Amino acid sequence: MRLTVYTDYSLRVLLYLGVRGQDHLATIQEIADTYQISKNHLMKVTYDLGKNGFIETIRGRGGGIRLAVAPEEVNIGQVVRKTEEDFHIVECFDPESNLCKISPECRLKYALNEALQAYFKVLDSYTLADVLVSKNALFELFGFEK
Amino acid sequence: MRLTVYTDYSLRVLLYLGVRGQDHLATIQEIADTYQISKNHLMKVTYDLGKNGFIETIRGRGGGIRLAVAPEEVNIGQVVRKTEEDFHIVECFDPESNLCKISPECRLKYALNEALQAYFKVLDSYTLADVLVSKNALFELFGFEK
Repeated sequence: MRLTVYTDYSLRVLLYLGVRGQDHLATIQEIADTYQISKNHLMKVTYDLGKNGFIETIRGRGGGIRLAVAPEEVNIGQVVRKTEEDFHIVECFDPESNLCKISPECRLKYALNEALQAYFKVLDSYTLADVLVSKNALFELFGFEK
Repeated sequence: MRLTVYTDYSLRVLLYLGVRGQDHLATIQEIADTYQISKNHLMKVTYDLGKNGFIETIRGRGGGIRLAVAPEEVNIGQVVRKTEEDFHIVECFDPESNLCKISPECRLKYALNEALQAYFKVLDSYTLADVLVSKNALFELFGFEK
């Protein structure tokens, strides 16, 4: 039931940029330092967040990254759908690697799939703005200066 | 979003025993052979299913395992809760290893927790009997003889 570290870090980058605000261009190094996580991991994460239209990169001297859209427009369910590698809860969710011989008639996958849809229905009801309601407190926890 | 292989196999053992019926005492070897999965994995799985009261072991010559309760009484949500190692969707769900400095004020964990509860609410609504509705077809897919 864990999300991948890749999804975890993607959400953290969005939270960081959401709290930091649009006037600041953030660097991958500063985000890595703030969270004390691997910069190499974040390279791929931010590249993909950009490709998916969640963040934008301003190039050149003094450049950096920021949200590409307002926090209200970043849907958490949509982010998780884009960042999770797959949704193969159990083996038979992947027809290519499935070896379980009862899968044609086993109803367990329907129950698990229904549960997964319920999970996403909740995440789809949240935007980045919703999870940033304590923005001022988060600003201080990040250690940003006003 | 994957369940562990341990949970996957636990559910498979219960499915197997549910289809096989109470008159048959199954061996770990036969379940491993049927699913073509590791017998060693299944040793731990069946031991824990027994400890949690889902299956019972009849010892001695001709002994084996069978469900300890009726399939209607095996709740899928309860099985998954017992078999998943933890529900640390992201790092801050585990206070012991959490290093994310914004966790005291970050609302993301509430959204993720609400999603997890929705996931379990669905699984809690299913029993082993529900996922075995095509019992005859499953009996044939397993290759059992009547």
